[in-house]
Amino acid sequence: MKQASSNYTPMSNIFADRLSDVPKSFIREILKVAIDKEVISFAGGLPNRDLFPINDLKKAAEIVFEKVGPDALQYSNSEGLVELRKFISNRYKQKFDLDIPVEEILITSGSQQGLDLLGKTFLNEGDDIIIEEPGYLGAIQAFSVYKSRFNPVKINEPGMDLEALKHVFLGRNPKLIYMVPNFQNPSGMSYSDENRKEIASLLVSRNLFLIEDDPYGDLRYTGLQKISFKQLLPDQTIMLGSFSKTVVPGFRLGWIVAPKHIYEKLLIAKQASDLHTNQFAQCVLAEYLAMGGFNAHVENIRRVYNIQREAMIESIKTHFPKGVHFTQPEGGMFLWVTLPHNLSSMKLFDIAIKNKVAFVPGHPFYIGKSETNTLRLNFSSVDKETIEIGIRRLGDALRTMLEVG
Amino acid sequence: MKQASSNYTPMSNIFADRLSDVPKSFIREILKVAIDKEVISFAGGLPNRDLFPINDLKKAAEIVFEKVGPDALQYSNSEGLVELRKFISNRYKQKFDLDIPVEEILITSGSQQGLDLLGKTFLNEGDDIIIEEPGYLGAIQAFSVYKSRFNPVKINEPGMDLEALKHVFLGRNPKLIYMVPNFQNPSGMSYSDENRKEIASLLVSRNLFLIEDDPYGDLRYTGLQKISFKQLLPDQTIMLGSFSKTVVPGFRLGWIVAPKHIYEKLLIAKQASDLHTNQFAQCVLAEYLAMGGFNAHVENIRRVYNIQREAMIESIKTHFPKGVHFTQPEGGMFLWVTLPHNLSSMKLFDIAIKNKVAFVPGHPFYIGKSETNTLRLNFSSVDKETIEIGIRRLGDALRTMLEVG
Repeated sequence: MKQASSNYTPMSNIFADRLSDVPKSFIREILKVAIDKEVISFAGGLPNRDLFPINDLKKAAEIVFEKVGPDALQYSNSEGLVELRKFISNRYKQKFDLDIPVEEILITSGSQQGLDLLGKTFLNEGDDIIIEEPGYLGAIQAFSVYKSRFNPVKINEPGMDLEALKHVFLGRNPKLIYMVPNFQNPSGMSYSDENRKEIASLLVSRNLFLIEDDPYGDLRYTGLQKISFKQLLPDQTIMLGSFSKTVVPGFRLGWIVAPKHIYEKLLIAKQASDLHTNQFAQCVLAEYLAMGGFNAHVENIRRVYNIQREAMIESIKTHFPKGVHFTQPEGGMFLWVTLPHNLSSMKLFDIAIKNKVAFVPGHPFYIGKSETNTLRLNFSSVDKETIEIGIRRLGDALRTMLEVG
Repeated sequence: MKQASSNYTPMSNIFADRLSDVPKSFIREILKVAIDKEVISFAGGLPNRDLFPINDLKKAAEIVFEKVGPDALQYSNSEGLVELRKFISNRYKQKFDLDIPVEEILITSGSQQGLDLLGKTFLNEGDDIIIEEPGYLGAIQAFSVYKSRFNPVKINEPGMDLEALKHVFLGRNPKLIYMVPNFQNPSGMSYSDENRKEIASLLVSRNLFLIEDDPYGDLRYTGLQKISFKQLLPDQTIMLGSFSKTVVPGFRLGWIVAPKHIYEKLLIAKQASDLHTNQFAQCVLAEYLAMGGFNAHVENIRRVYNIQREAMIESIKTHFPKGVHFTQPEGGMFLWVTLPHNLSSMKLFDIAIKNKVAFVPGHPFYIGKSETNTLRLNFSSVDKETIEIGIRRLGDALRTMLEVG
């Protein structure tokens, strides 16, 4: 037995081990640099605030105060508001012809909580999990807390690298595989239907769940809707969804779809985490959705973001030097740039900031890398004209860098 | 290496070990039984919905839509709204003459998330934690997830059993001690100033943090305000607070106060858990608090709950048979009953439900007990007249039980 110290001393060893592996949000640090009003920032991951349906939400809130009253402000159930879950179920039916019972839909405090609950429910220390490379930083943070072992598998258009995926299974038995198959954050890449089918056939016989995270699925600007993994692997797929990109992020409203025996575990984890999601925001959102303007609203977001996406692609073609590769996403909010000659995107960042333009260097999206030749550009939160100026500045920074060597 | 199964089979071993120890919310099960409209329920832990400041919150929401607009609906920082944190800081100054910098206040998605973040930040598997016996169920659930070892210490008026507390330190080095020293849930008991000072002198030299959870502190109906552990052990105390009992629970807004080096860890845990707390609800609450009616509102809650508390105490004196012990709390929402002759409160529950009255049997508030002679009564959510009828029914049930033996 260790002796308790007799004098008060700084408590260095008192923390749980689990937080030591969680990457600090590098993006937060970058956003601080980008706060200078003169800096054009492609660093954020924010939806365009000018598109928030403020007037309709205001109307919905008024109706909730009048019609629902105290029930919208009281403690509530952990599963979430049934009207909201019905809306989500109906939408899966319309979009994918999927029959998802309301009993398999759990409302979460944003998609990030969905990731945390899945980590809590599935991951023991050292358990293997497959993630994409590059991968979504929020997922890396959430799963790091549970001290799982990451197995990154490269993604390239048209999707996940199948040979690399097979290779993981040679030595390990991962419990989970995490994917953002539509307009991925950070890369903007999407998986083709064929790639999805091949992945499904690889996973079907295994003791493993696939997490299909789809925050951007409604933001498709071109090309055809792809098949959902839930259609391919109904018993093994857990879906995550969010209203952050289609309505507003400030409400922190997302959901998990999980088979019943998983759902029961997730519900215990949810109760232990925050009892239930903000009831008032759930009621306001449900009222807003009942008002019927959601589809037209999403259509408008698509129209505007597509203009910005096209402006960014065209500006890059005009202003970037040769040898710089970039993705041309069919939807979402991000575009992924690969520099030639393995140039460092961190070095580019320093030059770019002097030129008053910001982005996110790629390395936080990898496991255990401190430098890469990749970077993420966001096009959802900056208008067309500003995109053109910003990309020109970034092109100048690239040329400065190539000249210096 | 274990071989992956070649056929799809139910995945029984796929879950993390941590959830196996989390008690299901027994109270939730009880609330289901108590849903019958004819049953008078003292089982809940709900604030009285008739007292919610709906009109003022409606006004505040309108102002937020007009004045703050999209910023109230966008992604925001993990620390929480600074106006809210200033209000909390000022209130600690007024109430306890405590100087709490805004940088040490973290807004959480309800107090329950505060418990989860503390578990995440401090507890490795098998770490010792001291809790009260009986103890708050939400805390037991939250900490169970992290597979800590519970060391329950009896509480009795006037507070924690000091000999039992000393006994824990003979063989173990707990990292955390969790307490609800004012009008505890479930017992309604409070710690005297003297008891607090003795506890503090026992803890001061140890490598351990005290979590002072105070959701009911503002709901004092009689007696004098007690000293805060933060005054006694400033470097070792972490405080939890909540607006659920003083404004509305549906907003899910609480907070943690922690020394800076702890705060930084909690912030990482918060980011990984849900990025940040609902921004819109934070703005509406801050606007409501700025309107200035909060103190008068809390005064009104106190007045009404005190009427209900007194009605329950008087009814118990009139209707309960001799030999039944009960606490007379100076505040909060609960009263704790101890049956004579070690009679089972579960058996009483079955008789009571037939008499159309419900309560929570005591055993979920203990570690590893399936039966006790204790039970919890809630007086905040039932009016005076209903309390008198309900307590009479419960008295009848008690007499039936005593007659049967």
